[in-house]
Amino acid sequence: MPHTSALDIETLLSADARARRKTDTDEGGASTPDIRISLSSGQPDPHSMPVEDLATAMQTVLENDRSALLYGARDGYAPLRQVVADKTNSMETLRITADDVIITTGAAQAIGLAAQAFLDRGAPMLIDEASWGTLVFRAFGPHSIPVRWDEDGPIIADIERAVDRLPDGERMRLFYTIPNFQNPMGTTTTLERRRQVLDLARRHRFLILEDDAYFELRFAGESLPSYYELDKARSHVIRTGTFSKILGAGVRLGWAIAPAEIREAMMLYKFDLGSNPFMSRVVATYMQEHLEGHVEELREVYHGRRDAMLAALEEGLGGIATWSRPEGGFFIWVKLPDGVDSGELERATMARGVDIWPGKAFRMDEHEDGYVRLAYSLEKSEQIAAGVAIFSEVVRELCYQRE
Amino acid sequence: MPHTSALDIETLLSADARARRKTDTDEGGASTPDIRISLSSGQPDPHSMPVEDLATAMQTVLENDRSALLYGARDGYAPLRQVVADKTNSMETLRITADDVIITTGAAQAIGLAAQAFLDRGAPMLIDEASWGTLVFRAFGPHSIPVRWDEDGPIIADIERAVDRLPDGERMRLFYTIPNFQNPMGTTTTLERRRQVLDLARRHRFLILEDDAYFELRFAGESLPSYYELDKARSHVIRTGTFSKILGAGVRLGWAIAPAEIREAMMLYKFDLGSNPFMSRVVATYMQEHLEGHVEELREVYHGRRDAMLAALEEGLGGIATWSRPEGGFFIWVKLPDGVDSGELERATMARGVDIWPGKAFRMDEHEDGYVRLAYSLEKSEQIAAGVAIFSEVVRELCYQRE
Repeated sequence: MPHTSALDIETLLSADARARRKTDTDEGGASTPDIRISLSSGQPDPHSMPVEDLATAMQTVLENDRSALLYGARDGYAPLRQVVADKTNSMETLRITADDVIITTGAAQAIGLAAQAFLDRGAPMLIDEASWGTLVFRAFGPHSIPVRWDEDGPIIADIERAVDRLPDGERMRLFYTIPNFQNPMGTTTTLERRRQVLDLARRHRFLILEDDAYFELRFAGESLPSYYELDKARSHVIRTGTFSKILGAGVRLGWAIAPAEIREAMMLYKFDLGSNPFMSRVVATYMQEHLEGHVEELREVYHGRRDAMLAALEEGLGGIATWSRPEGGFFIWVKLPDGVDSGELERATMARGVDIWPGKAFRMDEHEDGYVRLAYSLEKSEQIAAGVAIFSEVVRELCYQRE
Repeated sequence: MPHTSALDIETLLSADARARRKTDTDEGGASTPDIRISLSSGQPDPHSMPVEDLATAMQTVLENDRSALLYGARDGYAPLRQVVADKTNSMETLRITADDVIITTGAAQAIGLAAQAFLDRGAPMLIDEASWGTLVFRAFGPHSIPVRWDEDGPIIADIERAVDRLPDGERMRLFYTIPNFQNPMGTTTTLERRRQVLDLARRHRFLILEDDAYFELRFAGESLPSYYELDKARSHVIRTGTFSKILGAGVRLGWAIAPAEIREAMMLYKFDLGSNPFMSRVVATYMQEHLEGHVEELREVYHGRRDAMLAALEEGLGGIATWSRPEGGFFIWVKLPDGVDSGELERATMARGVDIWPGKAFRMDEHEDGYVRLAYSLEKSEQIAAGVAIFSEVVRELCYQRE
């Protein structure tokens, strides 16, 4: 009789882990070393970060507040929750308090908490037809139903049809949507469309999980009320935001604003002993003084880069491809000429030192869709122009091969 | 027909969230403001933190490495994984590499990842009879079976009995245990007992989840090989550690060392886009230069405080209560005189401005056990003496009331 035996991990996994193994995905933080121009990453430009002011804020925190090095409150550092409330109230027609806010380890944690609280494996949910959120939701294994977008946002008929077709006893759990400068599509949902979506959420009693990561970075057009603001009863909307785009993803701090009952359900899954207490104090200290001026600068930076990318696209692909024209955020969504495969395109541009993201990565079923996402956030305008020129050349080459 | 309806959150919750609502617990980071002396908190003393060196490290990182403000690799910042490997290899008879290490958001995240990967609701697991881990595991709703401890560590017969009594088809998933200066019991598992536990794990094919949060802070006695080290086949042990006790819980960084297959299963649940990239660089920069000297200082500090607490206990409760004599870590476990209720004691000492933690909080079933945990980590020696004097007075008063 053998004294020891192999552990056989496979049979020891939780049921959920076994299901999840089939669908694991990765954002892939590290970039490939031989990429010279990255048009793939949704990272903000590290050179746009207020490094000196952050260093000063760190010094202030370390000198004055040693509790920065202790465990934190589970729902977040109170002054940072206040900073989020103040920012929200000053930029929008809202009157929220610090109590309405949970600080999370990036908005990704907030979205994950909502998924854990409100989704079962196989449970129905709605998601924008192409969405950054696939990276988070795929692992939870819901029955996700894509909602197509037109230039005004989510197509209402798609939501109605999805709800109507649910089997008896099934309830739509939530609609995960990115209303502003949608990632990857770049489009913004109109006010009218927001009202219609909210109306459906009320009628069919599902949650709207509003991912507003880019809200602060609008550089053109008019700011629109969020789903959270439109939901006067404060009952149907979870709104998430992040400091990743303003101060750098490296701070790993975001937030959720939601009704008390919903926050409580999300908190059931937050056993991290407080999102980074030290960084929370640094960000709070920095934001109290510098928020407005810094965000103003960022808007200018990204406005210029968007324009550089639009101009380069016009020059490189005018007449043979089309693309979105975002009023903020980081991304342009390019519809490729018919027959160009985005996977093949990705490999070919990579070989030329330019990194892009094929559209299918943002689809729950990963079907080839003939789109690519281009990010203008990380590189400077000259790099963007050079990268788009190479990208355009490769697209044209692939077109000629088709003919 | 009403146009809108309430969302009715209760019915929208995931099955898991509904189960979890009944068992939610909280570490409770913030202390009550009118407590003058805290003997409850497992926080390190913020005055023992190397604030100036950390500030220098932050400056260095901000000046030299703007990638600190970007998303990080999912398994952690590579140089920090290397720091953990180097530290492990220099303090123990081990030869691990950075690849064996995952950086996590505190050891709590590592433990949570293991629970998600290897536990189903109702699945059998073993846990030290009193354990910090109840705070994490309670929410997962396993069938947790307490393993009693004697002065040598976990009682082997308890493990054997638990495994023997499992219904057919059920498999013991894991044993969560804290081998060094157990939290809250203060006891250390002997080498012989470690070998026996590992032997049982091999024979019955369950995991050992070894929480070694206090490993570095041994100030007396001889360092013992970890379960991870004893498991030469590298197949049955996940070992977790943390920077919380060395550099402050506020950095929120810990790690897991585990075989590849196990790490992969744990990573299925890590969608946080990298544990804090900025703090990871600061900690790596700091640790590369200062680790050894700083840990040496901490050992001296906590050694002195333990002695202060032991002396105060001897003076206040000698002959009427008994307690453990830890060789490291932060905690002493006091067995109260018969008939003294730890909950009543907690309220009475709180009213006198001293904060303690009743033993039942560390039991999965929260039964009154006649123990309290006293921490000597946060307060200076004079404060400890004053706090224990008040605590002892209250114990004696409650004893007299019983007579």
